[in-house]
Amino acid sequence: MDNNKDKTVSDLGEFGLIEHLTKDFKITHKNIIKGIGDDAAVVENQDECMLITTDLLVEGIHFDLIYTPLKHLGYKSVIVNLSDLYAMNCTPSGITVSIAISNKFSLKALEELYSGIKLACEIYDVDLIGGDTSSSVTGLLISITAVGHAKKEDIVYRNGAKQNDLICVSGDLGAAYLGLQLLEREKEIFLSDNQIQPELENFEYILERQLKPEARKDIIKILSENNIKPTSMIDISDGLSSEILHICKKSDKGCKIFEEKIPVHPQSWQIAEKFNISAITAALNGGEDYELLFTVPLSQNEIIAKIPSISIIGHICDKSHGANLILRDGSEVPLIAQGWNAVKK
Amino acid sequence: MDNNKDKTVSDLGEFGLIEHLTKDFKITHKNIIKGIGDDAAVVENQDECMLITTDLLVEGIHFDLIYTPLKHLGYKSVIVNLSDLYAMNCTPSGITVSIAISNKFSLKALEELYSGIKLACEIYDVDLIGGDTSSSVTGLLISITAVGHAKKEDIVYRNGAKQNDLICVSGDLGAAYLGLQLLEREKEIFLSDNQIQPELENFEYILERQLKPEARKDIIKILSENNIKPTSMIDISDGLSSEILHICKKSDKGCKIFEEKIPVHPQSWQIAEKFNISAITAALNGGEDYELLFTVPLSQNEIIAKIPSISIIGHICDKSHGANLILRDGSEVPLIAQGWNAVKK
Repeated sequence: MDNNKDKTVSDLGEFGLIEHLTKDFKITHKNIIKGIGDDAAVVENQDECMLITTDLLVEGIHFDLIYTPLKHLGYKSVIVNLSDLYAMNCTPSGITVSIAISNKFSLKALEELYSGIKLACEIYDVDLIGGDTSSSVTGLLISITAVGHAKKEDIVYRNGAKQNDLICVSGDLGAAYLGLQLLEREKEIFLSDNQIQPELENFEYILERQLKPEARKDIIKILSENNIKPTSMIDISDGLSSEILHICKKSDKGCKIFEEKIPVHPQSWQIAEKFNISAITAALNGGEDYELLFTVPLSQNEIIAKIPSISIIGHICDKSHGANLILRDGSEVPLIAQGWNAVKK
Repeated sequence: MDNNKDKTVSDLGEFGLIEHLTKDFKITHKNIIKGIGDDAAVVENQDECMLITTDLLVEGIHFDLIYTPLKHLGYKSVIVNLSDLYAMNCTPSGITVSIAISNKFSLKALEELYSGIKLACEIYDVDLIGGDTSSSVTGLLISITAVGHAKKEDIVYRNGAKQNDLICVSGDLGAAYLGLQLLEREKEIFLSDNQIQPELENFEYILERQLKPEARKDIIKILSENNIKPTSMIDISDGLSSEILHICKKSDKGCKIFEEKIPVHPQSWQIAEKFNISAITAALNGGEDYELLFTVPLSQNEIIAKIPSISIIGHICDKSHGANLILRDGSEVPLIAQGWNAVKK
């Protein structure tokens, strides 16, 4: 019996939709060792594996050209894909870039977009290897696929978290979402009175987190230098809650995350207070941080604790305990994935 | 000096635009043996190579949902990518599918789309290995990336055509374009008076060529069984003229194509006459045939001539002779790529 028979796209949400639409597809090629359901697909070829991931960015859904410089957009489009590969502990080597453009775009605008793509390629050492160019009826659409290589034994999946493993996160969370709120607010003010200049000073960090994020190539390197292979890993594109729940579900485990341990940047606290938003909610559900969330055995506590850009925020526990957030007062609340609600709008 | 400084997107056209935007990108990874500029990118990994290609299909540009059944659309979206891989003499193994949908799409509609994707996966023996799902502001967008494997020495590029090589094409040409004209005409009639039923009988072949094309997996198999490795190959997505010019340009050669040798289906002749269109023009510039265009040494004439689904339509000559079409009366006209003019509209 299909329980989704009478459901709508909105009822299912992004993950439910993908699961529903792809449930009857089987993997038949034995060299495809991971299909749908992780940050990237894994295709085995002798000792080496090739990893493939893809992301779609749509104008009006993922970005607003009123406040997104095209160069930044090009850069970010590459980053979101590379981040998925790093989350598999893999080194990216190439990308394909497909764009659909409406006739409002000038050649100069596209050159700007590609200058950002090029910058990301240079900084992350990946090659542009293909793509497609098309017209669109409205707006800009960017579809990027990234490929990378890894030895089979080095690949980290979402499903390897073990009981008592430490849950770690790189950098800080929530800033990209708060940067977006700031840009949205300034856009509204600007649209109502275009004499008023936007107040963006002192918030460079959170704006950059939204407009020009980085992928954590450095973390992969640090972990490798310290001989740490995470037991599970995912990148944070949909908020901490959603991502830790993916790890718990795939690993068949529960978790405890401590509110006080969640890393939040001072500018994030500041703007959250100003906007009367909870900075922790932004970290849990905001998304677009492109930080790495991973688990390591408890035995590696000391090594991890010494790495400045990594925070230990909780631990993995038995599935029966559920996935919970421990608040500052000691009370527990279940973690809930907000995920992608764009279709609901 | 940049000669494109004052040019617009329309001035450049699709191929010029890609060339312009990507001219400063360099391939730095030595395992990437082919980047932009063929049907697929080639990444070397020991003896095996992985090939990657990607295509974008946009509602209102590449398809019209008034007359395109979603199942057919799903099927065709896969086929256009597989066709690129066959054109490299490569066996496809996996695809990623990203879609952006507006809220006009029901779950049932998406299930239809995916049923077509699934059918193509089954028939062509490829696995769905990943993807992304997103909202769109308007309409449907499908971005598919296909990957396949080939031994390095088996891969066929666009650039290997030699003087006196025979130019061969599979199947017949122009039918997909003529099928589209028929659908467009019936749509207009229907929109002006929806009591009139469309007259589509007797034109099943050309309609199927437009709505549910196949990729020529069979041709790759036949060539291999006959120990023929083409010297160059490309799939016909933009019309014969555009594709043979790609081969000539990449191989630094000229060509002669004989009008009387171009394979055209009886239904194509029939509908072309009815619509007062030249069937040969449809074959030269129509596109979406997804047939294979390839060159083989003259010495393989006899073997090729015996294969029923392959036509020899001309030969490769020195670059100085240009790329020409020899008409039935013996006169020569230069071949011109019409290619992609969608942005110009």
